[in-house]
Amino acid sequence: MFKSILVPFDGSQGAENALKMAVDLIKSGDGEGKLMILTVYRHHSMLEASLSMVRPNEPGNLDDVMREHATEVADHAKKLAKEAGCPNVHAFVSPGGVARTIVKFADKHDNDLIVIGSRGMGSVEEYLLGSVSHKVTGLSKRPVLVV
Amino acid sequence: MFKSILVPFDGSQGAENALKMAVDLIKSGDGEGKLMILTVYRHHSMLEASLSMVRPNEPGNLDDVMREHATEVADHAKKLAKEAGCPNVHAFVSPGGVARTIVKFADKHDNDLIVIGSRGMGSVEEYLLGSVSHKVTGLSKRPVLVV
Repeated sequence: MFKSILVPFDGSQGAENALKMAVDLIKSGDGEGKLMILTVYRHHSMLEASLSMVRPNEPGNLDDVMREHATEVADHAKKLAKEAGCPNVHAFVSPGGVARTIVKFADKHDNDLIVIGSRGMGSVEEYLLGSVSHKVTGLSKRPVLVV
Repeated sequence: MFKSILVPFDGSQGAENALKMAVDLIKSGDGEGKLMILTVYRHHSMLEASLSMVRPNEPGNLDDVMREHATEVADHAKKLAKEAGCPNVHAFVSPGGVARTIVKFADKHDNDLIVIGSRGMGSVEEYLLGSVSHKVTGLSKRPVLVV
């Protein structure tokens, strides 16, 4: 029943659980459903500036390294989804604050569902500390399935 | 794909949206899915004690009145779900704190999904103030779909 599902993926067990649930939802549909995977990485410009002062000959750019790592994580998720029988999968990476980047991405791509992993502790502590899944459910106007 | 879905229902627009989503999920399944509706009402023993002092001849019991109202709300949701084409619906009422009562109910009945309405403001204020849907996603170890 969902046409376009977004799964934010950070490589954690919770994210893998969310991916599995999203694949099941796509497979239970009419076969037209599209799965989008998003791995968000943080900008570290300040950290990078410091590094460039103490290690001026360091090759490359910290943001590039993080983007590469994020791409590997997103591609891994795409592979898992395809192996689980979901053909229509697309992987994306984006820099930024995690929750806001997810919500903006879903708005831009008009996803009709976000499936996201929780840390799964189920404790009052987790509720009080907050988590990305809490921020996304609080910020997004779209349906969010916390797995 | 879900066998037993719980929809906490308080009569709000958000709860009606959640109910509609749950009915769609049941209908997209194999026809074996069961929908459970739960309306939680608050105990008001202290309020009731005060009332009994100032209005000693007041007939009835405030908890009875609240239970009756909750039953009407839950039955209304059951009717809506049946009209929307979901035959296997059961309505329940329970006193207690809303979020904890929902989470305990889902554990007791082994629901494989909770579908719950948010206030839908999508604002930072709502995130900071918290809401029942936030508490349920934080406390429950089961998948929670916030609509």
